Amino acid sequence: MKNVEKYSRAYFVPPQTSVRWIEKDYIDKAPTWCSVDLRDGNQSLIVPMSLEEKLEFFQFLVNKVGFKEVEIGFPAASDTEYEFCRALIEQDLIPDDVTIQVLTQSRPHIIEKTFAALKGAKNAIVHLYNSTSVAQREQVFKKSKKEIIDIAVSGAKMLQEYSEKAPNPYFFEYSPESFTGTETEFALEICNAVLDVWKPTKEKKVIINLPVTVSHSMPHVYANQVEYMCNHLSYRDNIIVSLHPHNDRGCAVADAEMGLIAGADRVEGTLFGNGERTGNVDIVTLALNMYSQGVDPQLNFENLPEVIELYEKVTGMKVYDRQPYSGALVFAAFSGSHQDAIAKGMQWHEEKGCKTWTVPYLPIDPKDVGREYETDVIRINSQSGKGGIGYILEQKYGYRLPAKMREDFGYTVKGISDHQHKELSPHEVHQIFKEQYLNFFTPIDVTEVHFIQKNGIYAVVTAKVGDEVKEFTSNGNGRLDAVANALKNNLNMDFSLLTYEEHALERGTNSRAVAYVSVSCGKKVSWGAGVHDDIMTASVNALVSAINRAGLCLVDKTS
Amino acid sequence: MKNVEKYSRAYFVPPQTSVRWIEKDYIDKAPTWCSVDLRDGNQSLIVPMSLEEKLEFFQFLVNKVGFKEVEIGFPAASDTEYEFCRALIEQDLIPDDVTIQVLTQSRPHIIEKTFAALKGAKNAIVHLYNSTSVAQREQVFKKSKKEIIDIAVSGAKMLQEYSEKAPNPYFFEYSPESFTGTETEFALEICNAVLDVWKPTKEKKVIINLPVTVSHSMPHVYANQVEYMCNHLSYRDNIIVSLHPHNDRGCAVADAEMGLIAGADRVEGTLFGNGERTGNVDIVTLALNMYSQGVDPQLNFENLPEVIELYEKVTGMKVYDRQPYSGALVFAAFSGSHQDAIAKGMQWHEEKGCKTWTVPYLPIDPKDVGREYETDVIRINSQSGKGGIGYILEQKYGYRLPAKMREDFGYTVKGISDHQHKELSPHEVHQIFKEQYLNFFTPIDVTEVHFIQKNGIYAVVTAKVGDEVKEFTSNGNGRLDAVANALKNNLNMDFSLLTYEEHALERGTNSRAVAYVSVSCGKKVSWGAGVHDDIMTASVNALVSAINRAGLCLVDKTS
Repeated sequence: MKNVEKYSRAYFVPPQTSVRWIEKDYIDKAPTWCSVDLRDGNQSLIVPMSLEEKLEFFQFLVNKVGFKEVEIGFPAASDTEYEFCRALIEQDLIPDDVTIQVLTQSRPHIIEKTFAALKGAKNAIVHLYNSTSVAQREQVFKKSKKEIIDIAVSGAKMLQEYSEKAPNPYFFEYSPESFTGTETEFALEICNAVLDVWKPTKEKKVIINLPVTVSHSMPHVYANQVEYMCNHLSYRDNIIVSLHPHNDRGCAVADAEMGLIAGADRVEGTLFGNGERTGNVDIVTLALNMYSQGVDPQLNFENLPEVIELYEKVTGMKVYDRQPYSGALVFAAFSGSHQDAIAKGMQWHEEKGCKTWTVPYLPIDPKDVGREYETDVIRINSQSGKGGIGYILEQKYGYRLPAKMREDFGYTVKGISDHQHKELSPHEVHQIFKEQYLNFFTPIDVTEVHFIQKNGIYAVVTAKVGDEVKEFTSNGNGRLDAVANALKNNLNMDFSLLTYEEHALERGTNSRAVAYVSVSCGKKVSWGAGVHDDIMTASVNALVSAINRAGLCLVDKTS
Repeated sequence: MKNVEKYSRAYFVPPQTSVRWIEKDYIDKAPTWCSVDLRDGNQSLIVPMSLEEKLEFFQFLVNKVGFKEVEIGFPAASDTEYEFCRALIEQDLIPDDVTIQVLTQSRPHIIEKTFAALKGAKNAIVHLYNSTSVAQREQVFKKSKKEIIDIAVSGAKMLQEYSEKAPNPYFFEYSPESFTGTETEFALEICNAVLDVWKPTKEKKVIINLPVTVSHSMPHVYANQVEYMCNHLSYRDNIIVSLHPHNDRGCAVADAEMGLIAGADRVEGTLFGNGERTGNVDIVTLALNMYSQGVDPQLNFENLPEVIELYEKVTGMKVYDRQPYSGALVFAAFSGSHQDAIAKGMQWHEEKGCKTWTVPYLPIDPKDVGREYETDVIRINSQSGKGGIGYILEQKYGYRLPAKMREDFGYTVKGISDHQHKELSPHEVHQIFKEQYLNFFTPIDVTEVHFIQKNGIYAVVTAKVGDEVKEFTSNGNGRLDAVANALKNNLNMDFSLLTYEEHALERGTNSRAVAYVSVSCGKKVSWGAGVHDDIMTASVNALVSAINRAGLCLVDKTS
């Protein structure tokens, strides 16, 4: 690609790396989660949320999802954000165990307004930030490192002063914004300078947030940076190290996860990765990644469709079809081999009574996040296979087709999907089965059958063939065989009865029965199914359906 | 969350880890790319592609994007895929330097049909796979490890036999499918068993593909697995180690990147991460991540909008708004501070003639992938700031507003966006400026001005005030001051001239001039702008606009 010479690596590796984090291969406990949906999330919307939408979203985040920390905005930056903060406090909408967080720059009138906005809040984190990257120092602020530290330190002092006057002892957070474009030593220096002002204690810990404001490196580089900070920050025991990844390189989840095993305690992110540009880290994915490994994320995503509905309403965004765990297609299997493996895996789990979820192609049980097998998992189009199509028919409608019949039906359904160039719903699959296989009574319709047991079984069959009603009799090796013979001998047909299977269609004593029959006519095999309260009638119906579907299997009289 | 006890970690750490990969912090050269858009991508679509769509997409992938390897499907699995393979070969659509790849299971009739499909192909890779994970062995195949190895080895032998009969020496690929759910030692054992059949040479290398069929672990665990395989595979020098990550945990990009620094040579993926469930790894992101660090990805994404258009047409999918590099919103800055930093960064780059791209908040120059600053980057809504709004007006329409006027105009525009609850286009921003600030001639319209130089400057001003035409005269410290005095003294107004700035609006000799004026009326400051061929007229227009906008600044006669 042209212009590649314009670019070079814009990150800084720390002066030492211990890389102890690599020894951990999973996250063994939930971090502290902080939702920034109302801040970064809102800031990234084409149409920002209204006050009412913000209030509804906030209550959902704390009451339904269970966030204990929510960054609610930058109250000094706009009247809307100020009013939102006041509304939360004055309408008493913040539960006692929830802490709101507000963002502020290091400027006196902004800090003053921020504290005014917080008046009456029980628990609050005041989040101070300034930009520290080389690019921002040179291009935007045109200041030296020392001057940049002065901005942070003077802000830290002002926070301290205002906080001392406030009725409640607010907590503090400091972010060296654009951390990932900052020399790690300088980020450490500025954080420690701020910490020397705030002097965190066990009772009043301080949050040091290390944002991936713009992602410049691979995730393990970020993990090394985080580990370096964790190893060298002053007052480490009284510091909560926080992460705030953005997704410019598609690695926000990996950044957060690796940052956590590298020593961080807290993650700032949003639902579904909303946020500026490529978005913030998706907390749903982070939480359910932990969940899928047996670690409780301490957030409730048991009803993801409800979360999605509210989110889409207030943000005007759509959750992407392939967004992990939440997208419409993420549990979908269209392909035959995947459907087959899922169907077999589900059956295996049921038969074995297996309690640990290991079904192929499904990292978690869709039901655990409020999704449905029938509509979300096995989906039918021209790529689908007998396994999946048979699974739909069995799970949703109760038909357990014989293996070979599943194959036959599979081809029929795939062909229709291919021809119509569309996905088929479970209802449509069921319709195809009913129309093409089940109780298929033209041209032959057997209206009555009597059996006589006399030197074997005799069947007396009354049948409508076209407009004529006829009666035939024949014996056989069993009842169905006798019926088959009666039809074959009297209607000039040549077929063999190949397969017969049946099962109860519903559970309980009043259940109907379904029977499946295949007949061969020369090289051709034809399948039919029959349903009836009486199992014998169901079998005859299946036989007649198979014969009718085969095109009567007439004896070739020319030969 | 409930049911968390159903889950446990489903991956296997390798028996030894050397973790040498951690010493590398970036990818220094492009891997071999293989597009699986027509295979995994197609298989995941609600409506799979038609033959015509596949042909169009294939040609785009090889001729426009520059893929040299493309997996075109599973020709033995369906007639459509068989026909597609034949069409490519028979219509001679495969460039000489492009290799097609086809997937096959280890079953005799499938392998036979696969080779039939390839007849006449110059370059082809036959890709053999079978499932090796614990879950698939137990639940789907119900076979022992030895039996699973037998499947792979017998398939490998059949490929060898058919290949010897084929006119062209096809290349081979083997995938232990569901590698990430397989014990790493077992994956190694089965791969080495296959390699012992194929005996790769320098001339006929073999691809060993290590798919993240379902993602179960953090990316560094996968890197450790890949490194272990690279260290222990037989015939390593004659093997191309390939990656095929899926995105279940939102980490496909990190998996691919870490797998590459852990020793892999090749990546299978799709455009925009299309593919089953959460999708395959997004090759656009991988390629542009490299590009953003100054490494040529050897694929052409210089015109992403064109790639998106074709992709959306043939797949029926939409590229997600926040998909790295390609999403509609990924270069967008709505917020004031981001817009300000971008505007300053762009200006700094221009002034310094800086050749290395380091503009804040923009990991790459949007122009390098065919995006536009005006429509894609600075976007205006109620979150926006003076920096961004001023930038739009300057870059697109040529107005360089004084700093304080930018602030004033910024509030006006934000207010309108907030009130209308919508984003404003650059055209709408320009309209607001023209309607509310520029040549604003009611109620006062100065129609003529003459200057007389006699003991200082005298201005003779002809003005329409409402319906009346009046003429005033006054002196002043300069021409504009004289005009201001003439209006002030004769129309009972009380204002002070605060600011005056002007610049040429267009470049060249015939350019018009624009002037900006602010006046103070008591505590209020009012801004106006004027445009005219004549700079003096432009200034007077600006002054009159400022006065009119202020509501005339009438002297308060009640005091």
